[in-house]
Amino acid sequence: MEFLGTSIIGFRDGNAGSAGNGTFQASAPATGQNIEPSFHSATGEEVDLAVRLAAEASAEFGRLSGAKKAEFLETIASRIEAQIESLVTRAHQESALPIARLQSETGRTCTQLRMFARVVREGSWVTARIDRADPQRKPVPKPDVRSMLRPLGPVVVFGASNFPLAFSVAGGDTASAFAAGNPVIVKAHPAHPGTSELVGRIIRDSVRACDLPEGVFSLLFDSGISVGAALVQHPLVRAVGFTGSIPAGRALFDLAVKRPSPIPFYGELGSTNPTFILPGALAARGEKIAAELYGSFTLGAGQFCTKPGLVFLSEGKPADALVNVLAGKVAESAKFTLLTSGISSSYNREIRNRKNHEGVVLLAEEKSPDAGSAFQAGATLFQTDITSFLASPDLASEVFGPETLLINYSKKEQILEAARGLHGHLTATVHGTEQDIVEFSELIAILENKVGRIIYNGYPTGLELCDAIVHGGPYPSSTDSRTTSVGTLAIFRFARPVCYQDFPHVALPDELKNENSLGIWRMVDGELTR
Amino acid sequence: MEFLGTSIIGFRDGNAGSAGNGTFQASAPATGQNIEPSFHSATGEEVDLAVRLAAEASAEFGRLSGAKKAEFLETIASRIEAQIESLVTRAHQESALPIARLQSETGRTCTQLRMFARVVREGSWVTARIDRADPQRKPVPKPDVRSMLRPLGPVVVFGASNFPLAFSVAGGDTASAFAAGNPVIVKAHPAHPGTSELVGRIIRDSVRACDLPEGVFSLLFDSGISVGAALVQHPLVRAVGFTGSIPAGRALFDLAVKRPSPIPFYGELGSTNPTFILPGALAARGEKIAAELYGSFTLGAGQFCTKPGLVFLSEGKPADALVNVLAGKVAESAKFTLLTSGISSSYNREIRNRKNHEGVVLLAEEKSPDAGSAFQAGATLFQTDITSFLASPDLASEVFGPETLLINYSKKEQILEAARGLHGHLTATVHGTEQDIVEFSELIAILENKVGRIIYNGYPTGLELCDAIVHGGPYPSSTDSRTTSVGTLAIFRFARPVCYQDFPHVALPDELKNENSLGIWRMVDGELTR
Repeated sequence: MEFLGTSIIGFRDGNAGSAGNGTFQASAPATGQNIEPSFHSATGEEVDLAVRLAAEASAEFGRLSGAKKAEFLETIASRIEAQIESLVTRAHQESALPIARLQSETGRTCTQLRMFARVVREGSWVTARIDRADPQRKPVPKPDVRSMLRPLGPVVVFGASNFPLAFSVAGGDTASAFAAGNPVIVKAHPAHPGTSELVGRIIRDSVRACDLPEGVFSLLFDSGISVGAALVQHPLVRAVGFTGSIPAGRALFDLAVKRPSPIPFYGELGSTNPTFILPGALAARGEKIAAELYGSFTLGAGQFCTKPGLVFLSEGKPADALVNVLAGKVAESAKFTLLTSGISSSYNREIRNRKNHEGVVLLAEEKSPDAGSAFQAGATLFQTDITSFLASPDLASEVFGPETLLINYSKKEQILEAARGLHGHLTATVHGTEQDIVEFSELIAILENKVGRIIYNGYPTGLELCDAIVHGGPYPSSTDSRTTSVGTLAIFRFARPVCYQDFPHVALPDELKNENSLGIWRMVDGELTR
Repeated sequence: MEFLGTSIIGFRDGNAGSAGNGTFQASAPATGQNIEPSFHSATGEEVDLAVRLAAEASAEFGRLSGAKKAEFLETIASRIEAQIESLVTRAHQESALPIARLQSETGRTCTQLRMFARVVREGSWVTARIDRADPQRKPVPKPDVRSMLRPLGPVVVFGASNFPLAFSVAGGDTASAFAAGNPVIVKAHPAHPGTSELVGRIIRDSVRACDLPEGVFSLLFDSGISVGAALVQHPLVRAVGFTGSIPAGRALFDLAVKRPSPIPFYGELGSTNPTFILPGALAARGEKIAAELYGSFTLGAGQFCTKPGLVFLSEGKPADALVNVLAGKVAESAKFTLLTSGISSSYNREIRNRKNHEGVVLLAEEKSPDAGSAFQAGATLFQTDITSFLASPDLASEVFGPETLLINYSKKEQILEAARGLHGHLTATVHGTEQDIVEFSELIAILENKVGRIIYNGYPTGLELCDAIVHGGPYPSSTDSRTTSVGTLAIFRFARPVCYQDFPHVALPDELKNENSLGIWRMVDGELTR
């Protein structure tokens, strides 16, 4: 593999030689050693050029037919598949994520691109609405009014550390922003610049292959925060997609809303994903849940935003049995390698804090001999009681890594109180029999206001790609709870309705012409029809 | 008419006697005299109580069936109609708007309430999506995933000065927030407290008549900004609807996004509504356009957010003819009465500024003898050339009142440049022949990115209530260009998707149960069906 080591600005390579733009290298999480080559952080001029090219490309790209946009997305997917070996090899070096996981993540990335291709080829997502004129209406004639969704303009996407493919350069934010007709400028995550460059070059080649305007895509590198901050504040940028930590996401959100002209900022931030194991389920299959829960909270070394990090259990023998199995699994666990030195030191700090936290007991921790990995982490299991939990709001915050906290309670009212006190999360999980569900219906009602997705008798990790999925939730899990960053609904983040009143037929977009040549679903005079 | 003169907090009357909450009276715009009675500004305790009652009512109100919500909205509409005489009488005293206008605005208010009743009774707005399980799928079984829109929780609505009924206590923001299942706390506009109280009592009576929980509705008075600021910052408030000026709206937006947990702020702020009279249309019917344009920019004394305040004309004889007719109309115009002393002094200041503005010519102003009204305003017509306009960004800002600015241009590229430089507006209007439209297709493409609604051969005032209408646009016309404050799409502002994974059938909302007993449109395994 050869690398440019520079940003990709439209069809141009970034400047590798100029003064002032520093360089950085990825670190191999397995060894802590730097990985060649060096990557040049983008300069202010490069940021500005990328955004201006995107703005220039907006008009043409925004008017592209659904079929042409689908072809573009599918071209990217095919070219990623054609290079899966080099992508996975480099991503493995940069992330230490297992090869099999990275292969499946690459597959997921392509599935997402093709999912949005399907959505825009079918075309009904534009939410076309037509209210026909009635010149005879009294006291005033009724005009002809038609509307549909149109793209916003240049979108900035921040790559995430924990998904070097599916939530990065060609990930869900990029795919949905492209699908809606917006040029995209990606700020690569500095933990995996090589993977980012490889994918970025695939997208650039796809822009060329599909004969699209240059500014449709750019990829900018930076080891620090100045490129990201400049992008979010650039007057020609129209929206931002971000996946990352609460502090970083909030800082960028604040920049987006402080602009003279504020823009939508879609941040998918932190989530602890409370899990409630109700009495009936605990008695019926507590040990099975323990084994599966271990798998879920350590999946991806616990670095999933859907990791179940809070587990509520009713006190008693069944809970003890579950705890024993879970503690055993944790004690026998292999060591995990975390993604970055930052995540590693933050994880170690949080574990130390919990060990010293009043009312919190260390139930089990992994004790295998050091496997020699630089950013190592052992699985860790803590327990507390509901009173201590209610008294310590910090126990509800996310620990990014293979850790979970069991919370014992004795009375139903206690977990209702705990649920009412939760801040926003992406998911909540309820294990219960049908009788539990009836008895705890109030819990479900509370959780509906706290999360974007409620899972029954399952696990929050493993996020289905489909039309109905919601990966978003009340703050701080998302900065905009009305949206999702995964699934086909994600496209709606990057579009806005535009209305055409009494337009001559020739000047209407095809989606709004009487003949409906695209065969899309439309609301015509109040009725859905195609 | 008898008035309480206090806020309405759920089923309770506000405190009229406590120290510290000042009182205020409305001013009659026709005379400048105060109107009885005094209204008590809400106290901090009253703000908190109103919000807490709303939060308590959220669960029950949020689960109400579409049929029950429709009944509630229709009850409000019928009761408003039953009191139309007292409402219009008081609104006329407080606003000086003509009786006929207020009657039609009351009708519009009821039409809006019934429109949202229809939407929620039909029920498909919840955007139900169902992806069914496939236990046989490899490598992992496919879960059952279902999602639908659910209400956000307590919504704060700010009444607008220029529509004492249709954009106030029972206006579009309130109707759409109720329809989505959210309790509403209205901050009454201090220019029409009596009208607000009358409508507020109708809503409170409707809450009781429909046997709904107390906190579904509250109405708070304040002559200043502290109640509004406290509401926007209250931790239990989940969204805000606002119609008003750019400075006031931006200040409240800033509070909403600075919260520890930011909330959506839907502000409909200022708009100058650029109008382009293209050469073909100008030649064919310039004088007709002049007469109609006069009607549009002086409608409601020019106090509509859709007032056409910028009019681009190609230089030449046809333009001169249009200008002559328009100037004649303005000179013969009757005096208008503005809504408030604040609007009046701001209008007079802006008119003085334009009279002294380099490159701006006063073409005509109303010169009728003073009709004795306190907040009087004369219609005013200015003209400038495209070069001066491009050099003076301040000329594009809104003058709230019966004024418009003609801008002469000679080359097509000049208005394209002017269009490219526009900030966001609610509307743009294009007068043209079909040939103009072809020749100026680039202008339309630019305007699509600048406004929410483009009108062809019509006028932006007179906003149709329907499914396809968009009353929102890029900043500063709206704080969220993805939304509309008018029409059925407005309901989507106050809801968020919630996803249910592998739920037992009994625990699913009716909208997501297999049998679809509500007969709503749903996307099932990718296909729209009912």
